[in-house]
Amino acid sequence: MFKLDDVVAEITDAVKQRSDRGEVASYIPELARVDTSAFGIAVVDVAGNVAVGGDSETPFSIQSISKVFTLTLALGKFGDRLWRRVGREPSGSPFNSIVQLEREQGIPRNPFINAGALAVTDLILSGHQPREALGEILRFMQFLADDSSITIDQAVAASEHRTGFRNAALANYMKSFGVLDNPVDFTLGVYFHHCAISMSCRQLAMAAQFLARDGKHPLTGMSVVTPERARRINALMLTCGHYDGSGEFAYRVGLPGKSGVGGGILAIAPGKASIAVWSPGLDTNGNSHLGRIALEMLTKQMGWSIFRA
Amino acid sequence: MFKLDDVVAEITDAVKQRSDRGEVASYIPELARVDTSAFGIAVVDVAGNVAVGGDSETPFSIQSISKVFTLTLALGKFGDRLWRRVGREPSGSPFNSIVQLEREQGIPRNPFINAGALAVTDLILSGHQPREALGEILRFMQFLADDSSITIDQAVAASEHRTGFRNAALANYMKSFGVLDNPVDFTLGVYFHHCAISMSCRQLAMAAQFLARDGKHPLTGMSVVTPERARRINALMLTCGHYDGSGEFAYRVGLPGKSGVGGGILAIAPGKASIAVWSPGLDTNGNSHLGRIALEMLTKQMGWSIFRA
Amino acid sequence: MFKLDDVVAEITDAVKQRSDRGEVASYIPELARVDTSAFGIAVVDVAGNVAVGGDSETPFSIQSISKVFTLTLALGKFGDRLWRRVGREPSGSPFNSIVQLEREQGIPRNPFINAGALAVTDLILSGHQPREALGEILRFMQFLADDSSITIDQAVAASEHRTGFRNAALANYMKSFGVLDNPVDFTLGVYFHHCAISMSCRQLAMAAQFLARDGKHPLTGMSVVTPERARRINALMLTCGHYDGSGEFAYRVGLPGKSGVGGGILAIAPGKASIAVWSPGLDTNGNSHLGRIALEMLTKQMGWSIFRA
Amino acid sequence: MFKLDDVVAEITDAVKQRSDRGEVASYIPELARVDTSAFGIAVVDVAGNVAVGGDSETPFSIQSISKVFTLTLALGKFGDRLWRRVGREPSGSPFNSIVQLEREQGIPRNPFINAGALAVTDLILSGHQPREALGEILRFMQFLADDSSITIDQAVAASEHRTGFRNAALANYMKSFGVLDNPVDFTLGVYFHHCAISMSCRQLAMAAQFLARDGKHPLTGMSVVTPERARRINALMLTCGHYDGSGEFAYRVGLPGKSGVGGGILAIAPGKASIAVWSPGLDTNGNSHLGRIALEMLTKQMGWSIFRA
Repeated sequence: MFKLDDVVAEITDAVKQRSDRGEVASYIPELARVDTSAFGIAVVDVAGNVAVGGDSETPFSIQSISKVFTLTLALGKFGDRLWRRVGREPSGSPFNSIVQLEREQGIPRNPFINAGALAVTDLILSGHQPREALGEILRFMQFLADDSSITIDQAVAASEHRTGFRNAALANYMKSFGVLDNPVDFTLGVYFHHCAISMSCRQLAMAAQFLARDGKHPLTGMSVVTPERARRINALMLTCGHYDGSGEFAYRVGLPGKSGVGGGILAIAPGKASIAVWSPGLDTNGNSHLGRIALEMLTKQMGWSIFRA
Repeated sequence: MFKLDDVVAEITDAVKQRSDRGEVASYIPELARVDTSAFGIAVVDVAGNVAVGGDSETPFSIQSISKVFTLTLALGKFGDRLWRRVGREPSGSPFNSIVQLEREQGIPRNPFINAGALAVTDLILSGHQPREALGEILRFMQFLADDSSITIDQAVAASEHRTGFRNAALANYMKSFGVLDNPVDFTLGVYFHHCAISMSCRQLAMAAQFLARDGKHPLTGMSVVTPERARRINALMLTCGHYDGSGEFAYRVGLPGKSGVGGGILAIAPGKASIAVWSPGLDTNGNSHLGRIALEMLTKQMGWSIFRA
Repeated sequence: MFKLDDVVAEITDAVKQRSDRGEVASYIPELARVDTSAFGIAVVDVAGNVAVGGDSETPFSIQSISKVFTLTLALGKFGDRLWRRVGREPSGSPFNSIVQLEREQGIPRNPFINAGALAVTDLILSGHQPREALGEILRFMQFLADDSSITIDQAVAASEHRTGFRNAALANYMKSFGVLDNPVDFTLGVYFHHCAISMSCRQLAMAAQFLARDGKHPLTGMSVVTPERARRINALMLTCGHYDGSGEFAYRVGLPGKSGVGGGILAIAPGKASIAVWSPGLDTNGNSHLGRIALEMLTKQMGWSIFRA
Repeated sequence: MFKLDDVVAEITDAVKQRSDRGEVASYIPELARVDTSAFGIAVVDVAGNVAVGGDSETPFSIQSISKVFTLTLALGKFGDRLWRRVGREPSGSPFNSIVQLEREQGIPRNPFINAGALAVTDLILSGHQPREALGEILRFMQFLADDSSITIDQAVAASEHRTGFRNAALANYMKSFGVLDNPVDFTLGVYFHHCAISMSCRQLAMAAQFLARDGKHPLTGMSVVTPERARRINALMLTCGHYDGSGEFAYRVGLPGKSGVGGGILAIAPGKASIAVWSPGLDTNGNSHLGRIALEMLTKQMGWSIFRA
């Protein structure tokens, strides 16, 4: 995989030299301290090759990228019944908007806005203690990445729990419509903790390999999800993965992807590779500024856009 | 292209036997009279093979599908300056919503909702008489489809002009924000007429071939748009092509597409084929009910989803 | 009426000396030229005394104040059937908002926002030519003010017709919901013309006397409307008469009132007096800045607030 | 006060015979058990006469009527600084809407919608323990009504605390904008408890006398608030006291008033009387159905509308 290595090295160099680095998210105090000069990238292709660049081994807070994995887990447990609690349409609104919930009776637009991810977390929690549910999510990540060292950053989780009033508003609001089954604090607690999972670019790209392989685990070849479900998760990432910037990401990058406010972006080139990039500075839509630029360069040079001939 | 012929024939048979046919759009009187038993399909692959089924030669009103072509034409004339007038994000709202315009100072969310298409039409019209602008659009369609017999259904255009109060509201509203340059009636007139272009599935699939071929005209190989622009138009169709049902279409069909209230849907399998289906009965989002089902069958059997490995 | 004369003279002096004069409405070109140094006031009490100050005899464009009189006229002709077309609640939105119309199926919140006044105008127009309807409205104003010299400023009406895209959007939007019966252009034409009626403070205060006298014409004593209807029109002015500043007006002035973008404000002290003030500079809610201040002084000094013991 | 006694007796008889009684609020479980056949009325005029009818001595949950008194208390402590936290305009939305908060950065429209009352409660709480703040509110009610037997219904407060997810959403949402100073649970706790104050119609009418007397306590004559502030509280009740039914109440009853979901309505005839009615069945806007009808009859027969000559 000579060419991929070169492209990744070239992108790493180019990005490291840029002075426009975006702004770190300030609303989670623990994340506001992160160094904006960091940049990491890891690409795992379906042949098993791995190309990395920059701070690819540094763990960062995956934040909303965890929503791809909780959705996968919940679909495995509840199947299409999940869609009674959450829709599949782009929201046309910022990630934490509450307006659509009022208009649509507490049913969030999709599983990748905060409200939708809270509804998914609530499903996973059903009938369990928060600790058990969280353990299940963490073990699922470790299994997918084949790496038992992945952990939760308790300081980040605690920081969000102390200051996550907007998410508490969303959860209470859905609860008022009967869309959440569990005590609001339980659901919020599990949510804040799975958002606080720490992973490196390499671990993240590995964990998402199944989405590039029609649902198959990269090491064992066993089915994590059916091929159809893998396709559909990819479709949701394409249409809804970047909040109010989803159209822009599809337009510029042309890959299904999911961003997190910690500066990570996960992207999938179906049948080709899974990719993780990380750079803490964000653009105005809350997506990693340099991360998106790196992905745009990668797609272009590798010819991986799902929209090209 | 043996297999494609078989699949198309099979889909045609399967669809013809279904009793769930959706509802004809009633708000355009002239369209309300159409027979819901009609079904047509045409697939043109990048090797030049054509597979057709059902009423594939019957002209129908392409309606909003015309927005893909006016966007292409306007991008050719104005380039990225076009994006000062219209965004690139899914709207999260029905096709004719006016709420977002108020919040966003008259700038429509994307070129495929009515407001956005009106803004694009207004750009094409700039400095021209309505008749000239309309002639340019029609000749562009004839050139793309290599068929000079394509015409505008004047009765449909007149019917919409008489009853299109919602579109008149959108146009006047944008005009009040200075987003339209031309007299409101001129812009509306050209818009209603290009929506009233009549084409068969075969003509439509042919006209859209350039989007499956990185921008190249299927007969001459000349560049209609650059490869990058073709990819980006496909991305916009994927995220915004079906109004409030865009997420659902991506989830189920997995191809960039654009629907029209006349019952047509255009879909692109990049690098593989362009597809047109037609069945007048609509689902609750205003997209062809059987058309979407036929496309779902086609993508599945041909393995054309852009989200699969 | 010694005291009232003194108070009006004192207010006129005090207001003339202020340097904060607000901003002239710029969206109607013909109104943008008006001199902001003008100030007029006229108070007519129920004993028939008239106290005037400043430019009380200068005609100005009454604009939205006309909505009080078209509502009165339409209630006389259609009675409570009018309320099928328009509500009675404050809108919580600017005067020309279109959002609520979408949520509430084209039924405007109240007769004093633009959409509601268009619905009322459309009712008055029913079955008539625009010229006839307009004649009826003008004669009603002349009858109420006992002054046949009141006219319409054709230049202002034409100016609004040329640039009133927001109102055209509202009218087309309501038409799309079937809330207007007449051709949109007819309704808009009558609306723009009745808003362009020119009256002086003295004429306006006289024309509104019936609202201070339980519905009775000041000269003849005949019933213009029933006492109950006069009370209810006053109640509507209190809750809805100043768009998004209605709460503030009630809080500060404490009288039913209706403002116009031409800088006039009509206010009613039931059982005591009718008042008209005029000063072209507007505050951020589109209400006359000095007009409101003058009314606040008047209410305070005369003890006319409807909320005091 | 012969006539008032007769009118109150007549209204009590007339209302008791009606079969349309509205629906009991079901969202607070403890309130859902109340008997809808109850009806009480108490009128206290400024001469000190008291006329009562029906269940005028039965304590009921005053719910949102408490907002009039917390506003009065907070204005006394913080003066016009209070208006930095809450507006003075009608909301045009249901009592518990969250949409406007998003548009207006967490600043509630007025002190009588739930969000606004939470902001007022948070101010009263500043620097105190919940128990202290609640004690202050309760003592203020006892002082105004000159009745130390007034208490809080702990079962109702607990019931709301357990199920008040919508209010918890509002409070967390405002907290996310920095509009609340205290821990969300503290503010909610005090709010749910002051809404659960139990009072009879007689106690309530007495407690509100100061609003009919330009701010003076009925027994001592001492100033509870300044005359200007009493007028302004009345103005706020008129424009905002009945949520989405404020316009209708002004139109039909013509008095400043405040309703509670427990079926009570407080109304003020400035300079004439304070009135409390109670009947648990609600109309679609959440206001007491028979309570409003009784007030409409009372105003009409006593000629107390603030909008009449």
